[in-house]
Amino acid sequence: MQELSQQIDFILELDKLKAVYRKALIKTDNNRYENSAEHSWHISLTAHVLAPYANEAVDISRVSLMLLIHDIVEIDAGDTFAFDHHSVLGEQAGKEIAAADRIFGLLPESQRHKIASLWHEFEQAETPDAQFAKAIDRILPLIQNMQNEGGSWAQNKVFKHQVIQRNQYLATSAPKLWNYALAQIDIATDKGWLRTE
Amino acid sequence: MQELSQQIDFILELDKLKAVYRKALIKTDNNRYENSAEHSWHISLTAHVLAPYANEAVDISRVSLMLLIHDIVEIDAGDTFAFDHHSVLGEQAGKEIAAADRIFGLLPESQRHKIASLWHEFEQAETPDAQFAKAIDRILPLIQNMQNEGGSWAQNKVFKHQVIQRNQYLATSAPKLWNYALAQIDIATDKGWLRTE
Repeated sequence: MQELSQQIDFILELDKLKAVYRKALIKTDNNRYENSAEHSWHISLTAHVLAPYANEAVDISRVSLMLLIHDIVEIDAGDTFAFDHHSVLGEQAGKEIAAADRIFGLLPESQRHKIASLWHEFEQAETPDAQFAKAIDRILPLIQNMQNEGGSWAQNKVFKHQVIQRNQYLATSAPKLWNYALAQIDIATDKGWLRTE
Repeated sequence: MQELSQQIDFILELDKLKAVYRKALIKTDNNRYENSAEHSWHISLTAHVLAPYANEAVDISRVSLMLLIHDIVEIDAGDTFAFDHHSVLGEQAGKEIAAADRIFGLLPESQRHKIASLWHEFEQAETPDAQFAKAIDRILPLIQNMQNEGGSWAQNKVFKHQVIQRNQYLATSAPKLWNYALAQIDIATDKGWLRTE
């Protein structure tokens, strides 16, 4: 029962991700901030729905699991806003690696490596699965912000070029979604939800 | 782009599950109520972690997707407490079937059937995948309540026999977890978190 006890510790640890709040706003719940646990659910299911747009063959089950675990490190490292300064994001990377060691280290030896290496694969974004996962993780906030008068973009005075840059993974991973994203970014700019200068 | 537009509608509809609150309490976030979106994330990942205890061969990717979608119908039908009166739960079943038709019906024809039939499979609980998914969906609140001085059990004056009954799927789907659950239920009863009369 040693393994089970480690697994239960890990499962209980996950509860903490429900207390990590992002900059995204939930329009359907009085515009409260979204937490990283519910975001991870949404993104993982979005990957299944948008899987037909993947440009290369991807293993959607791996992509889905990757997205279920991609934010767990925020339990220790906290969430950073996607458009924060580079120096903030650089410091964050180190914190997240330490967090991955600690949190995935709660799992039994037999499971730790699989989950940790899936997280590292996502972070490195070199495989088709990881690149598609990243692309989906970035288009969802766009879909949400377009529904919510610019949402976190408008609230944080984000520039158009930053959103284009952030969605670059779509260009190679899912070109049809890239075209859709570019069109939406133009609409957002026309509406004044994104800044150009 | 007709299909993409339907997929985006479905993805946006999912946001509403973040506003469906359960009876479960999140100890790690000031004991606020848990919503069904973050619960779905937690349960889906828990299935991956506890997969080694499945008694029969299960396709854990299917189980995981089943758990990602299992509560979507609550967007229309709302959450019911697991230990509500039978008449309430009976009425709920009809509402959920109508909700499944409406919400999964937002998806393009090419995806609707797969997701809807996975949800029906979960509800009918006849396949090993669905039975394991049900078992996991029921053990997680037990794990959470044990960590939280009885949590929703104590708050709602739940009986020991109700929790044993509710966790029956474990007996055949994952016998080692069933033994663990029975031992935890005894502890909870000794502590007065579950009632015997």
